[in-house]
Amino acid sequence: MFVTIDFNSDEAIYVQLRNQIILGIATSEIREGDNLPSVRELADNIGINMHTVNKAYTILKQEGYVKLDRRKGAVVALDYDKLRAIETLKMQMRLILAEAICKNISYNEIHDIMDEIISEFSCDSR
Amino acid sequence: MFVTIDFNSDEAIYVQLRNQIILGIATSEIREGDNLPSVRELADNIGINMHTVNKAYTILKQEGYVKLDRRKGAVVALDYDKLRAIETLKMQMRLILAEAICKNISYNEIHDIMDEIISEFSCDSR
Repeated sequence: MFVTIDFNSDEAIYVQLRNQIILGIATSEIREGDNLPSVRELADNIGINMHTVNKAYTILKQEGYVKLDRRKGAVVALDYDKLRAIETLKMQMRLILAEAICKNISYNEIHDIMDEIISEFSCDSR
Repeated sequence: MFVTIDFNSDEAIYVQLRNQIILGIATSEIREGDNLPSVRELADNIGINMHTVNKAYTILKQEGYVKLDRRKGAVVALDYDKLRAIETLKMQMRLILAEAICKNISYNEIHDIMDEIISEFSCDSR
């Protein structure tokens, strides 16, 4: 699993880690049932604290992206609470589209950006 | 200006305030050149600290949504750094679409949600 952390970013490292794992799942780089690296391994690889990796894994568990197995560690297991996910998506989308519109980005431009991103995500396993 | 703060939310109050003002601009409830309420007035109305309102206004200024005028206070003034805004939009959109895809939301559903939100935002002044 390829993870790049920007140590100069304003975004907390555990948030960056969470986001990259979700992007990894969406692009099918990591798949349902796959093991994530152990906390120690990932912390050593990136050069961050084990506590930070633990925090990211715990959030991914709470949000329904992984299960934490005592023996196997963190395993990708998607919890499809779709109604809740749709509510979350609407709320997030409403805000980023509001920001885009304030910045004079047109409806067509937003559409093109969305299509470009969707095409990055392979959907073969879904 | 209508602002609703959820005091039980995990989201910081200054972030909620920032977001609602941006949504207000996108829906044309607040328009370019409009004055935002004074810091004291808004703090009193919502029942929050003046420091919290100040923090929201400062962020809105840094992000190019308002200007802070010594005499008139905070005035909606949109800074169209469009290239930067497009980069931000792509980054944000990429993450929320990744989350949506992990939760089994289809491309068509995402499209419909986007269209529904866009139709909320009146574009008559842009």
